[in-house]
Amino acid sequence: MISFLNDYSEGAHPAIMQALQDTNLVSTIGYGLDEYCALAADRIREAVQSDHAQVHFLVGGTQANRVLISSALRPHEAVITALTGHVVDHETGAIEASGHKVLTIPASQGKLTPELAERIRAAHNSEHMVKPRMVYVSNSTEIGTFYSLQELEELSAYCRSHHMYFFLDGARLGSALTAPGNDVTLPDLARLTDAFYIGGTKNGALFGEALVLVNPALQQDFRHHIKQNGAMLAKGRLLGIQFAELFRDQLYFRIAAHANAMAALLKQAITEAGYSFMIDSNTNQLFPILPNEVLEQLRSRYLFSHWEKTSDTHSVIRLVTSWATAEEDVQAFAEELLAISGAAVSK
Amino acid sequence: MISFLNDYSEGAHPAIMQALQDTNLVSTIGYGLDEYCALAADRIREAVQSDHAQVHFLVGGTQANRVLISSALRPHEAVITALTGHVVDHETGAIEASGHKVLTIPASQGKLTPELAERIRAAHNSEHMVKPRMVYVSNSTEIGTFYSLQELEELSAYCRSHHMYFFLDGARLGSALTAPGNDVTLPDLARLTDAFYIGGTKNGALFGEALVLVNPALQQDFRHHIKQNGAMLAKGRLLGIQFAELFRDQLYFRIAAHANAMAALLKQAITEAGYSFMIDSNTNQLFPILPNEVLEQLRSRYLFSHWEKTSDTHSVIRLVTSWATAEEDVQAFAEELLAISGAAVSK
Amino acid sequence: MISFLNDYSEGAHPAIMQALQDTNLVSTIGYGLDEYCALAADRIREAVQSDHAQVHFLVGGTQANRVLISSALRPHEAVITALTGHVVDHETGAIEASGHKVLTIPASQGKLTPELAERIRAAHNSEHMVKPRMVYVSNSTEIGTFYSLQELEELSAYCRSHHMYFFLDGARLGSALTAPGNDVTLPDLARLTDAFYIGGTKNGALFGEALVLVNPALQQDFRHHIKQNGAMLAKGRLLGIQFAELFRDQLYFRIAAHANAMAALLKQAITEAGYSFMIDSNTNQLFPILPNEVLEQLRSRYLFSHWEKTSDTHSVIRLVTSWATAEEDVQAFAEELLAISGAAVSK
Amino acid sequence: MISFLNDYSEGAHPAIMQALQDTNLVSTIGYGLDEYCALAADRIREAVQSDHAQVHFLVGGTQANRVLISSALRPHEAVITALTGHVVDHETGAIEASGHKVLTIPASQGKLTPELAERIRAAHNSEHMVKPRMVYVSNSTEIGTFYSLQELEELSAYCRSHHMYFFLDGARLGSALTAPGNDVTLPDLARLTDAFYIGGTKNGALFGEALVLVNPALQQDFRHHIKQNGAMLAKGRLLGIQFAELFRDQLYFRIAAHANAMAALLKQAITEAGYSFMIDSNTNQLFPILPNEVLEQLRSRYLFSHWEKTSDTHSVIRLVTSWATAEEDVQAFAEELLAISGAAVSK
Repeated sequence: MISFLNDYSEGAHPAIMQALQDTNLVSTIGYGLDEYCALAADRIREAVQSDHAQVHFLVGGTQANRVLISSALRPHEAVITALTGHVVDHETGAIEASGHKVLTIPASQGKLTPELAERIRAAHNSEHMVKPRMVYVSNSTEIGTFYSLQELEELSAYCRSHHMYFFLDGARLGSALTAPGNDVTLPDLARLTDAFYIGGTKNGALFGEALVLVNPALQQDFRHHIKQNGAMLAKGRLLGIQFAELFRDQLYFRIAAHANAMAALLKQAITEAGYSFMIDSNTNQLFPILPNEVLEQLRSRYLFSHWEKTSDTHSVIRLVTSWATAEEDVQAFAEELLAISGAAVSK
Repeated sequence: MISFLNDYSEGAHPAIMQALQDTNLVSTIGYGLDEYCALAADRIREAVQSDHAQVHFLVGGTQANRVLISSALRPHEAVITALTGHVVDHETGAIEASGHKVLTIPASQGKLTPELAERIRAAHNSEHMVKPRMVYVSNSTEIGTFYSLQELEELSAYCRSHHMYFFLDGARLGSALTAPGNDVTLPDLARLTDAFYIGGTKNGALFGEALVLVNPALQQDFRHHIKQNGAMLAKGRLLGIQFAELFRDQLYFRIAAHANAMAALLKQAITEAGYSFMIDSNTNQLFPILPNEVLEQLRSRYLFSHWEKTSDTHSVIRLVTSWATAEEDVQAFAEELLAISGAAVSK
Repeated sequence: MISFLNDYSEGAHPAIMQALQDTNLVSTIGYGLDEYCALAADRIREAVQSDHAQVHFLVGGTQANRVLISSALRPHEAVITALTGHVVDHETGAIEASGHKVLTIPASQGKLTPELAERIRAAHNSEHMVKPRMVYVSNSTEIGTFYSLQELEELSAYCRSHHMYFFLDGARLGSALTAPGNDVTLPDLARLTDAFYIGGTKNGALFGEALVLVNPALQQDFRHHIKQNGAMLAKGRLLGIQFAELFRDQLYFRIAAHANAMAALLKQAITEAGYSFMIDSNTNQLFPILPNEVLEQLRSRYLFSHWEKTSDTHSVIRLVTSWATAEEDVQAFAEELLAISGAAVSK
Repeated sequence: MISFLNDYSEGAHPAIMQALQDTNLVSTIGYGLDEYCALAADRIREAVQSDHAQVHFLVGGTQANRVLISSALRPHEAVITALTGHVVDHETGAIEASGHKVLTIPASQGKLTPELAERIRAAHNSEHMVKPRMVYVSNSTEIGTFYSLQELEELSAYCRSHHMYFFLDGARLGSALTAPGNDVTLPDLARLTDAFYIGGTKNGALFGEALVLVNPALQQDFRHHIKQNGAMLAKGRLLGIQFAELFRDQLYFRIAAHANAMAALLKQAITEAGYSFMIDSNTNQLFPILPNEVLEQLRSRYLFSHWEKTSDTHSVIRLVTSWATAEEDVQAFAEELLAISGAAVSK
């Protein structure tokens, strides 16, 4: 079976495994205070062009979201997000479990705008309601789109003018930053957000997210919050070693670009076969609308997620590519889809 | 520098690294639902001789303690522990952050007894106070001692007679179970506790704790709690692969036995050099009392933790051994200590 | 100024003030363990025809909602409510602050149905999502409507078939139970819900809500939860004295019926003046749609809440009546409205 | 039966009942935004001589402690208190339920000192531990003692030098400020603390605590926190009316002085009868050590709390006086004690 289920189906990119192997017997201090974490943080500060940013390494995305949000907000403060935001329905209420309401609004293409955020903020104008204090966006989004520089500039300006934090979830940041049409850079994120994270789990690492705290107000005692949330890895070096490798020789971007390229091939094949998409995506997640009978045949050799029904005869599926996606597997899928579709059409 | 700082200073035991390498390109489902986790859970169920136990794999000890305790207790319920318990002062208030009071009592040798637990329980007899509902112990303890089978039998019987859960933190369980004088087995733990975990981080894994839920009352919806706490690893397989290896061919016990053997050599050397200990330990943590001038000399070549001052001239240090401790390094330490001590004595 | 702002603008019904005065110097035990609380609980158990129900007296509605919901749910469990539910946007995130997500869905007339609840429940089918475990409804609702017996029967059956608690917020229960067209009784509520509360604050008491716990699963250690939430009144007797009086000689129902009667007069006058309503209500809250110029004139002598704009020229306002609403004030309002409207029309 | 059980056994001081009666039919806005609350706050600001202090009225002491502490601290921050502090064991873990650890140390006479606080603070020096950020004291203390001005000055200076908040629980503040030997004033408290509250429940009110927020850092959005904790009274005016009365014509101090005077008579009688005290107190709580046979006889006519056994033959009891304690009842107790004791001695 060939899997397009997600971008965390295998272990790590071979270069990362090699780095872990090479350092395995070196003795270091624990809890992320080692030289590898220091090196990785330095490389990331250089990549984001922010000398004063703190870089903390966390194991996963839900953890990163929960630690950051709960450390930033006072008990009565809330976070604004698009209805499709990962924190809404895919983290088992982790943010609410830390005491904070998540305020949602439907957003076209999964992307929040100042207008949408303001609709929520303006409605929360009393002490009988929570106080919106943070805007949360994901880039790339949960449905494969990404923000333009101008969109992020506007959100950043909006947040600053309303004394709200701007936090960007970068679980799939690599894919966004290397997508055709993207005009955003890491230094842009450091300039425009208060905090963001650079996802490793979905971009070649065994695990790990590099949380960049740009705003000094979010930096104080942050390691206390990591520890309190059970998120401080004893062998913190593992995160440092991986991110030092990801940010050496552009590995992070090369991995993401490969995943995007594989997705582009899939997109091209699906388009050629005459099918459309729930939403247009240039990143490593595709959401084609396919006839159920085609899906049935594909399922015998390929793994992918059912997303939603669009009619009695058609469904949206999700295809995800990664560093581990082989071009030959993509081509096999493309050929099979064309063959099935031709057969389907000719029936 | 040779490090006796702790048992998580290096990467993983080579056999574990090899297992991770061997499986790296295999594609699996995420979040711990893969075949490796299933295999590891089966091996652990066999090792603990409990068909109905659930086995969940978590990344670290604070995480394991927090997820288990917060999922088991209602808001007004509290956990009883010896004052030296890891949850008291070494997890940045993680248990309190989940809403629960941690009730403490000083305990000789870091070991709780039914009498001590009952002193706390009996004092909490009103709705104006929290309700003790769980007893927490660590084995081996935070100061290197371990529980006898009879001690655990008594604690278990006490908990059951008072409708309290009995939870055992096994961050260093391997060292306890392989220590000279130990008479406790994994099946004993499955029989006597409601939940316990088998620590991997401090016994050769890159990271990972295998939480064994014996009591069905603690099993329901447990994966929801893991996810909510940000503790569900996307590539959950990493935990399965490691524990499957640890529980193949007794690797878990061989690693622990090695660490204990190295500690025994250190203990012998320290005793021969004429020094005593804060507490007698047969596990991989030693707490010798040494003259400050001896310590000063040792520090030029060895890393270890200062524990506490006992007088103006002497201090307790902590020495920890692990799978990575080389016998030649232990012998070098032994010889140097004898040499220094002889010199110190003859001065 | 004559106030139709709300039903808690004055002190208490004179009979309640008298009861407090009469008992003022009697010495009792604290924290609600006194004879007045016992008497009031007995009267309520009799009124709801449930011998085994626990009755707890709390100071206010947000408090009652928070204590009940947070004591009933495990950390990963959530509550389902209509989007207009009081717990959603009018309690400053009190439920989320206790760790639980509030799941909402727009509901016609502010009333939840099994179909709506099921839409939410069915969508939460994974450990990556919270688990819906309780259905919350208000009766009368936040927009003045009330549930029929059949509607409550259906919701109750739905909850039981899906292992969910059914909790009814009765902040304005008196008004619902005495409204023209109502066919629900207190014994119905005790039979159909797991817990509900009988609101005193908005029905003649100085303050106080009587929380009736019908389901034994919700009863255990409930006073611990009250205390932990800072909701246990030292002079708990004050609640007992008031509810004993409210449930003597049907005072509770007489007060509510008066408020409803006053609202009916207002409704009649508004209808006669030719205006319509945002929603049809037979309870003590009315939501007429009036021309802005009429509202402007009314504001010189009457207090009421602006609810929302319906157009550039019209707005919805909220009018609320209570035990303290005098018939002469209602008549004055009616006459003035007719006069203004005639003038408005003739312009 | 004559009760020395506590200072909240009756309703309210008659002047307060009168004020509530007099204002009962006045219509006001809800939630504490009314003119009575404004008046009471003004009177309190004048009494504490702090123009910029915020004054918030809460229903009870546990509520006041929980709202203040949880609004002031970030998640990893903790509060330091004497082991006898009310927040430790008498509020069902309310502080921990809001996520914060309570750090305790035994303190002579129930009074914290900078030395004791520093012992805790200095021990919490790592990100693996909570961060002490607030010092909590009660005045009068839970065992009847009170702080001198110099003691408070020292604690205040200590807190300020270590960037910690200083919070004073004044549930029985009236008794402390009017006790023989006291040299502290309300303006001193406003000068030395960051926040304190003036207890009404135990000093003549039906209920209510006036929380004075001196430090602007604690003031922002405080009403959000009140509401979120279910602590915002709909008829907030009830608190305003009572505190406006308590701070008119020194009623607050006259009530407290009466309670102290009654306690002083009891103390004199007990001393004359030849008995000693667990601790010397000049406030409205006494802790005499009496023979069990004497206690047995007293119990037929008097109510009081058993505090603890001191030997097989003697016990400590607690006697509490209040505004409602009648001098004739005190004298009756005194005479009976002397009579019993004489009999006991002569046996």
